[in-house]
Amino acid sequence: MRALLLLTISLSVLLGVLTQEPQPCKAPPYLEGKLLVVFPEGKTLVFEQFYYDAVEQRIRVIAHEQDSTHNVFVDRLLLFRERFYYEISYHNKSCTKVPFSAAFSPIEIPIDAHHKAQFVIGSLSAPAQGLLVNNWEGSIAEIKANYSMTFTEFGCIPVTILYSVEKTGHIVSSFFDIVIGIENPDIFIPPSFCTSAKLVERKPGEVADFFRALL
Amino acid sequence: MRALLLLTISLSVLLGVLTQEPQPCKAPPYLEGKLLVVFPEGKTLVFEQFYYDAVEQRIRVIAHEQDSTHNVFVDRLLLFRERFYYEISYHNKSCTKVPFSAAFSPIEIPIDAHHKAQFVIGSLSAPAQGLLVNNWEGSIAEIKANYSMTFTEFGCIPVTILYSVEKTGHIVSSFFDIVIGIENPDIFIPPSFCTSAKLVERKPGEVADFFRALL
Repeated sequence: MRALLLLTISLSVLLGVLTQEPQPCKAPPYLEGKLLVVFPEGKTLVFEQFYYDAVEQRIRVIAHEQDSTHNVFVDRLLLFRERFYYEISYHNKSCTKVPFSAAFSPIEIPIDAHHKAQFVIGSLSAPAQGLLVNNWEGSIAEIKANYSMTFTEFGCIPVTILYSVEKTGHIVSSFFDIVIGIENPDIFIPPSFCTSAKLVERKPGEVADFFRALL
Repeated sequence: MRALLLLTISLSVLLGVLTQEPQPCKAPPYLEGKLLVVFPEGKTLVFEQFYYDAVEQRIRVIAHEQDSTHNVFVDRLLLFRERFYYEISYHNKSCTKVPFSAAFSPIEIPIDAHHKAQFVIGSLSAPAQGLLVNNWEGSIAEIKANYSMTFTEFGCIPVTILYSVEKTGHIVSSFFDIVIGIENPDIFIPPSFCTSAKLVERKPGEVADFFRALL
């Protein structure tokens, strides 16, 4: 009986490998690149620098936009384990510690995601002209959100992550120029003028999840 | 003097090659794949089959969507030189010839486009994990439209073309699973039951440009 069970399991695994059905995957633990986030209100933020460390649960995002109509500068070091982020201004040499409550959510396809499609961006007719990606869908009951995620078939690199949150709307994150690894680990160490930074009090009722912390 | 001019031109060409500044490019003349079009009203059409022939100026699009809420079936053979398209229904063995006035516009980056950015979708940290693309912007005075186009760096394969037309709104075309070439050239020959098709009269004032013809 046990032998039969083992045989069945082995065959299923073998068939899974043979049919090469895409499996949910986890992005590499260290990434850096660019991140474009479109918020429900239509507000778009381009983080020219995005650093991701899934091991120590740290993210740093830097946005610097300057044009005739608006001037955006964001430099945030999010420490998920410590449950606060540093708001850094090199220009003023000032630093604020802001509490936030979001749990660290690694860049990955949830294990219960539904494989929607495999497709090619560009063309596989010649080398370097196309990229094979998978699209996955699913929902997260706790935050009442549906998601649609597109990751590369090889390497599990994120391309686009869309969250459709009840009452809030769509949040679309697009990743570009992703490099595997962190070139300068110092990016996760707050600058020296942050050591004396005080933890600001969060206003009661203020939402401070991951995406709010980015805004 | 002529020698100096020649030297200057040669040096400019050489520098252009050396700096490898991206140049506006033309997509291959024969393409097939999938096309997703988001119209200004928010309506989205997925053409599972898209065939493009820039030499004889013919496009065939086939969409077949069936779910609980709607049932879309489109099969159109657009003959830009003849200035009409065939509306084909294999199910009913019926065919209509509909006049339309759009000029054929090849899939290409206009020569006066402004290079906005070069970026990587995914990652170039390992083979098959990323795709190098260029984004171009510009405007077309005749149709009072701005555009934003993303094509692959190698092969000039279209990825996304956005037209922002005054008064109408955004039209976003995304290309997937593109193959260079046409596997079956018969796709541009109307089925036999189309030979007796009559040219329907266009209602006065009815707009019949390329994108309207797709709707």
